[in-house]
Amino acid sequence: MGNNLLKGKKGIIFGALDEKSIAWRTALKAYDEGAQLVLTNAPVALRMGEINKLAETCGNAPVIPADVTSMDDLKNLFTKAMEHFGGKVDFVLHSIGMSLNVRKGKHYTEMDYLWNQKTLDISAMSLHRVLRTAWDMDAISDWGSVVALTYIAAQRVFPDYNEMADAKALLESVTRSFGYHYGVRNKVRINTISQSPTKTTAGSGVKGFDGFISYAEKMSPLGNASADDCANYCITLFSDLTKFVTMQNLFHDGGFSFTGVTQAVIEQMEK
Amino acid sequence: MGNNLLKGKKGIIFGALDEKSIAWRTALKAYDEGAQLVLTNAPVALRMGEINKLAETCGNAPVIPADVTSMDDLKNLFTKAMEHFGGKVDFVLHSIGMSLNVRKGKHYTEMDYLWNQKTLDISAMSLHRVLRTAWDMDAISDWGSVVALTYIAAQRVFPDYNEMADAKALLESVTRSFGYHYGVRNKVRINTISQSPTKTTAGSGVKGFDGFISYAEKMSPLGNASADDCANYCITLFSDLTKFVTMQNLFHDGGFSFTGVTQAVIEQMEK
Amino acid sequence: MGNNLLKGKKGIIFGALDEKSIAWRTALKAYDEGAQLVLTNAPVALRMGEINKLAETCGNAPVIPADVTSMDDLKNLFTKAMEHFGGKVDFVLHSIGMSLNVRKGKHYTEMDYLWNQKTLDISAMSLHRVLRTAWDMDAISDWGSVVALTYIAAQRVFPDYNEMADAKALLESVTRSFGYHYGVRNKVRINTISQSPTKTTAGSGVKGFDGFISYAEKMSPLGNASADDCANYCITLFSDLTKFVTMQNLFHDGGFSFTGVTQAVIEQMEK
Amino acid sequence: MGNNLLKGKKGIIFGALDEKSIAWRTALKAYDEGAQLVLTNAPVALRMGEINKLAETCGNAPVIPADVTSMDDLKNLFTKAMEHFGGKVDFVLHSIGMSLNVRKGKHYTEMDYLWNQKTLDISAMSLHRVLRTAWDMDAISDWGSVVALTYIAAQRVFPDYNEMADAKALLESVTRSFGYHYGVRNKVRINTISQSPTKTTAGSGVKGFDGFISYAEKMSPLGNASADDCANYCITLFSDLTKFVTMQNLFHDGGFSFTGVTQAVIEQMEK
Repeated sequence: MGNNLLKGKKGIIFGALDEKSIAWRTALKAYDEGAQLVLTNAPVALRMGEINKLAETCGNAPVIPADVTSMDDLKNLFTKAMEHFGGKVDFVLHSIGMSLNVRKGKHYTEMDYLWNQKTLDISAMSLHRVLRTAWDMDAISDWGSVVALTYIAAQRVFPDYNEMADAKALLESVTRSFGYHYGVRNKVRINTISQSPTKTTAGSGVKGFDGFISYAEKMSPLGNASADDCANYCITLFSDLTKFVTMQNLFHDGGFSFTGVTQAVIEQMEK
Repeated sequence: MGNNLLKGKKGIIFGALDEKSIAWRTALKAYDEGAQLVLTNAPVALRMGEINKLAETCGNAPVIPADVTSMDDLKNLFTKAMEHFGGKVDFVLHSIGMSLNVRKGKHYTEMDYLWNQKTLDISAMSLHRVLRTAWDMDAISDWGSVVALTYIAAQRVFPDYNEMADAKALLESVTRSFGYHYGVRNKVRINTISQSPTKTTAGSGVKGFDGFISYAEKMSPLGNASADDCANYCITLFSDLTKFVTMQNLFHDGGFSFTGVTQAVIEQMEK
Repeated sequence: MGNNLLKGKKGIIFGALDEKSIAWRTALKAYDEGAQLVLTNAPVALRMGEINKLAETCGNAPVIPADVTSMDDLKNLFTKAMEHFGGKVDFVLHSIGMSLNVRKGKHYTEMDYLWNQKTLDISAMSLHRVLRTAWDMDAISDWGSVVALTYIAAQRVFPDYNEMADAKALLESVTRSFGYHYGVRNKVRINTISQSPTKTTAGSGVKGFDGFISYAEKMSPLGNASADDCANYCITLFSDLTKFVTMQNLFHDGGFSFTGVTQAVIEQMEK
Repeated sequence: MGNNLLKGKKGIIFGALDEKSIAWRTALKAYDEGAQLVLTNAPVALRMGEINKLAETCGNAPVIPADVTSMDDLKNLFTKAMEHFGGKVDFVLHSIGMSLNVRKGKHYTEMDYLWNQKTLDISAMSLHRVLRTAWDMDAISDWGSVVALTYIAAQRVFPDYNEMADAKALLESVTRSFGYHYGVRNKVRINTISQSPTKTTAGSGVKGFDGFISYAEKMSPLGNASADDCANYCITLFSDLTKFVTMQNLFHDGGFSFTGVTQAVIEQMEK
């Protein structure tokens, strides 16, 4: 059904928790477009076993556990992936985010700083760790592509998003900083996609999320982008058609980010 | 050779002056990806006749002259295009820009205001005219895609770019403004691509352009993007893989826009 | 009552229509801070005579009519201002904006292009004309300061703001472009202030304005900024305390521009 | 000599290392403008004793040591400051930054992650700790003002700036996030100033810093802003003239941030 856009390409997908997740949909699309895949997630997330269904659908892709805060795990992941692929990796999807303070219900003004440190490590510096592991092993092909998922809370405040806003801002900065170095050395390009709020299992944890999804829907001229649409967009960024796009934060949100207000919101406000 | 990414889609390409131009390369790629095309340019530009070669290569695409400051010409263009296609248009490339003050060697601080009015009309408000013509005729399919080419001078000053900086800022604003309305009514998406300086016939007219191209090359981690690469990027934006990207200015510049300085530039500065 | 922040400085204030207008409030504050002033507005606006009250309050400041689309008027204005001051001008406030299409009730997608040309000329290119007149006459002191008022619709769409969004985007680009040249030659700095929606006589003309003001109020952590607060901010930009701030768009909006959503808006959406 | 702009206001200044530092210059100006001050720095920095000279010049301002990663120290600081002032604090300057990886000569791609954690904690999350301490104690007056110093590397890559780019991006996000909450509760405003590279003792540690300062000078229409000019700008932000400016990153850089290239740089590139 695909267009062979990723024919011959090999990629690692982080974060395919269950079939609602963006990483899951992206793995399906990438496989459909001709890519070979390696799937990975945190050992604790893999225990649920869901990912094996995805692996089967994607030509029995290997599932390699990796805690993204462990350099050993990441080295093992890239080593095994390269063995499996018989060569370098062409693309990577980083769909990783977790906020301990959100999970424990701590308000932004009352955060636990140790938890915050872990949030930043897991959600943002993990991208640096992944890239640095690949960099040290020279594991990404020239003109390879790395995409990380982010959210517009990195630019504007959405109060319930809490410390994840700061984590995403840090993630986007790592994208630029490492994007520079990896671009100069290997023409590897690194970008973030700033996606509409999406009804994934991960998203559901956030307080007031449903109300917020409906606000975003009303505030987006095209409506909210779905996980499948986000997967499609990832495919373009992994393909050779976007070789000079790098160090950017790309909004994929139906126009939300450049809309100040819509008629629909104004009408609701007047009620 | 293509991937049928635009199979069944119909598009209008503005501004294919000669084989170096981005519009020309985009027409070739779009045809290669399965699209049907209508080509157009200003009557005076068509007189050179170059475009007929392109039309032949693209399955004898009709060439319909249109002065983008004339609503009659634009109406005629869309009418004939829809007749030719037997239906609505799926994508449009707006690659139009002309600065009378640059051409006549007038410094920004000495501009002729009548020429400036024409520059803004041709280079920026022409996008409004194109969209408004399509809007009135309901000529663009739901989820259709419009792309206009712009330059980073709309965000930061490049002194020799002169009044074209202002024209591009206006163009990008029209993109957002009309993008809102066309998004709400027909899910049509409208974006600009902010392209590396490119050695086209149009570009060559700008003073100090060669020196500037080499500066941009040194300042871009991936180097400058070529016209062919820009064409590739346009294809992704015309395809169904980017349906929720709208009202944006998308940099396609090898990382130039998010690079403050490179080692290569610092070394040159120290000479 | 002031702090002599502008002691010895001489400024021209455009656009003081009546006592609600930002320019009017700024003139009062600037006088209070020790500045000498020249007031100006379009001849048709001056006919109302209101401005004479302001002139009296500001030490009998001369009122010199000027149509900002007329280079002769602007030359006359700067000539007379310099005669009155016995020297160069230190600061200029550009508070000028008028949309013919808004006034005539034309939707953005149905604009009259001749009216649009006038809107752009009056609301945006007028800044170029003012600066270029001063530039030619070398009428602004080194390290002088020029401020123009703008609105966030230049960055994000507010549908009812119509063509003024494009005009403001153009205005902000002129600010950067001329800011570069005037900065290099005379260290003159040029900025825009992006102000909260403000209940001025000019603002009242915009459709749905009251509803919008209350939305902006709810969406701003500090609430909307008043005309008096904007005047205060202008004073800082005219003073010597901000000598290295230039070519920027500065938000003065109680946090609106960097807020994605507030609790108050979410609650209203849930009703 | 001042204008009594801060008459009656009380402020805490972090980071006045020696007389070259921006915090030092800001303390002098603030005192000159009528403010009462409390000075603070890390215990290790205070050992040098320089700060006592500043304290004397500023009306024998108390010097209270505080490690910004210690909540106890910060609580002690605010407690003693409020005792000294006999009331709440009106403004705070956060001029704190330290990169362990830069100091130890670790390239960005080879960073030590524990050092990075400390860099982020000291340089960015310290702002959260300061604000949260004040928040818990309700120690900042309504309409109080907090300013933190940052650098444009948070937006664009300057390779030698290394992990501090990421730290500054995080700092700017904390500014927005906490700015929202403190704005809603107490109308407290929080902003960052993105300052030109400045020849301070702190800055001198960065590799290639002198070359970079001269590049920035050439790239800024007004030239680089000095520490004294930055101090002036801080004064405006602490004053009541900027009450509706919040959650922003304000460039104070002579136009560097909105300049793509200057004639001076182009000429150097052509050598």
